[in-house]
Amino acid sequence: MVTEVKDTSKKRMLTGYRPTGRLHLGHWHGNLLNMLKYQAEYESYFFIADWHALTSDYADTSQLLANVEEMILDWLAAGIDPDKCNIYRQSDLPEVAELHLYLSMITPLGWLQRNPTYKEQQEQVTTKDLSTYGFLGYPVLQCADIVIMGADVVPVGEDQLPHLELAREIVRRFTHFYGDYLIEPQALVSHAKKVPGTDGRKMSKSYDNAIFLTDEKDDVAKKVRQMITDPAKIRKDDPGDPDICSVFELDKAYASAEELAKIDKECRAGTLGCVEHKLGLAERTSASLADFQTRRAELGGVAGLVDQTLAEGAAKVRPIAEEAMHTVRKLMKVE
Amino acid sequence: MVTEVKDTSKKRMLTGYRPTGRLHLGHWHGNLLNMLKYQAEYESYFFIADWHALTSDYADTSQLLANVEEMILDWLAAGIDPDKCNIYRQSDLPEVAELHLYLSMITPLGWLQRNPTYKEQQEQVTTKDLSTYGFLGYPVLQCADIVIMGADVVPVGEDQLPHLELAREIVRRFTHFYGDYLIEPQALVSHAKKVPGTDGRKMSKSYDNAIFLTDEKDDVAKKVRQMITDPAKIRKDDPGDPDICSVFELDKAYASAEELAKIDKECRAGTLGCVEHKLGLAERTSASLADFQTRRAELGGVAGLVDQTLAEGAAKVRPIAEEAMHTVRKLMKVE
Repeated sequence: MVTEVKDTSKKRMLTGYRPTGRLHLGHWHGNLLNMLKYQAEYESYFFIADWHALTSDYADTSQLLANVEEMILDWLAAGIDPDKCNIYRQSDLPEVAELHLYLSMITPLGWLQRNPTYKEQQEQVTTKDLSTYGFLGYPVLQCADIVIMGADVVPVGEDQLPHLELAREIVRRFTHFYGDYLIEPQALVSHAKKVPGTDGRKMSKSYDNAIFLTDEKDDVAKKVRQMITDPAKIRKDDPGDPDICSVFELDKAYASAEELAKIDKECRAGTLGCVEHKLGLAERTSASLADFQTRRAELGGVAGLVDQTLAEGAAKVRPIAEEAMHTVRKLMKVE
Repeated sequence: MVTEVKDTSKKRMLTGYRPTGRLHLGHWHGNLLNMLKYQAEYESYFFIADWHALTSDYADTSQLLANVEEMILDWLAAGIDPDKCNIYRQSDLPEVAELHLYLSMITPLGWLQRNPTYKEQQEQVTTKDLSTYGFLGYPVLQCADIVIMGADVVPVGEDQLPHLELAREIVRRFTHFYGDYLIEPQALVSHAKKVPGTDGRKMSKSYDNAIFLTDEKDDVAKKVRQMITDPAKIRKDDPGDPDICSVFELDKAYASAEELAKIDKECRAGTLGCVEHKLGLAERTSASLADFQTRRAELGGVAGLVDQTLAEGAAKVRPIAEEAMHTVRKLMKVE
């Protein structure tokens, strides 16, 4: 029996993630822990943004479906619970595409061209051709995602604030032309812990520096062993500086405050070697992943689980999208 | 009983018109006569492009539904027959919006920015703000309209050839990325007779120079009386030059070849006055509209006819759109 999660005493929170495949520790600390919090505090809508993935990865879509599947299983194993929130895939709601088209009619081109993310990505990404109509319209699609579900709040990092402001401006323009119906989403500034990858840069699949949530103990140990510490600490008993050590940085997410203080002290004193610290971090990391990995293995063995989760998720949110589109069409005098 | 018009021996022809409300003689000679021909010769798809109307008229949509209704009734009264062709409204196929989104992902921005129509309209239209994302994407939406129905041919005026070429380029790009499925539409260069409006310019509702198909005899006579003739022919017996007379130009669509030769001769000789010629043209015009107007009055009295026509039309073409989207989604690996 499918029931819609709708607690009117709670605000409606929506967030979407591109299907990037297997999740890593960066996602765990940056997204999943927040999602678990949102799930408890809000009426939550979590969606897999597969159309957004197409805006930049249109040239090779071969991994798209597999990525969606991995991501759903990781979410479920992490404790994202379809009975406590709404999980769905963007492309399962064609209504979003229709709303995107309507909003495109009223969105000034200049708003999109001045979007800092658009300009940045154009400059930084050199491996993909992002000079496409769809990529320029990314924020319009995002706006459609948000307002079709009537979301009150949207968690955003600071770099995404301009996108949310754009969505709010599009809503105001809609209101001006057609009447007061769409909700202006508020920013929920999220404080996500950033963890370093094995090379010290931000953890990212594309940097090939990620520890995946499904990595086995040996893999974790191997990856941690490759991590960069204070380059001045060459021998075990050289004193080191934890402040420039990515092992220490990552360990902030795993060691207790007491353990961290002890590591800090011993590293600086030259009584803790990097090899030993790495062993400790690898153990703590693997231990923290143990429950997740057990559940993940179980869920991975349940035939049809992903399809069922997506089908039930779509069935729960579709009535909301349909009602929104019915009203939008009436307001715009299309029907 | 709704049956799909599908004659596999015939090519599939598609054309759409913006809902501009009551049709006039310009539409009659420019579109309707061609549509009647297409209906006989092709497996035809005629759609009301209400979403296209939104690309430029988003700021005031109050007349949209009424315009659709007038246009459908005019089509039916003119002999466009839902049993011989497919009549539908663009917005009744949300699949088109989804395909538009997919095609937007692969459409280079430069193709749209270089589109001559886009540049022209930006310069010429000063009463509307056309610097919108949706207006820029007009040709992408047009492409979606065409390819979702698998149209082989699309009638185009010369000025629309760049749009069709753009659609063909988008199809080729789709084929390159995802495989050979969408059909590259061919241009069917249409030879539509252009008729002058009452002020000598192209007949157009926005120029306020139109004779509508539903205009009664008195209105037609009054409008024709206001038409501009050779300014050098001031008195009835002054010789005139039919080549610069818009009454003569319009009459080419109504008088027989014999009548035209006689008018030409008498005008030049100064034996035919403008008032008399106008009376003749008004009579010929009204006579030619008589059958249409009788049918139009009948159809206008049939309760629910427009809704029924649109519903049955949508039911006929939706399976085609659904099948196309199913295949497109599979090819793009969205499902």
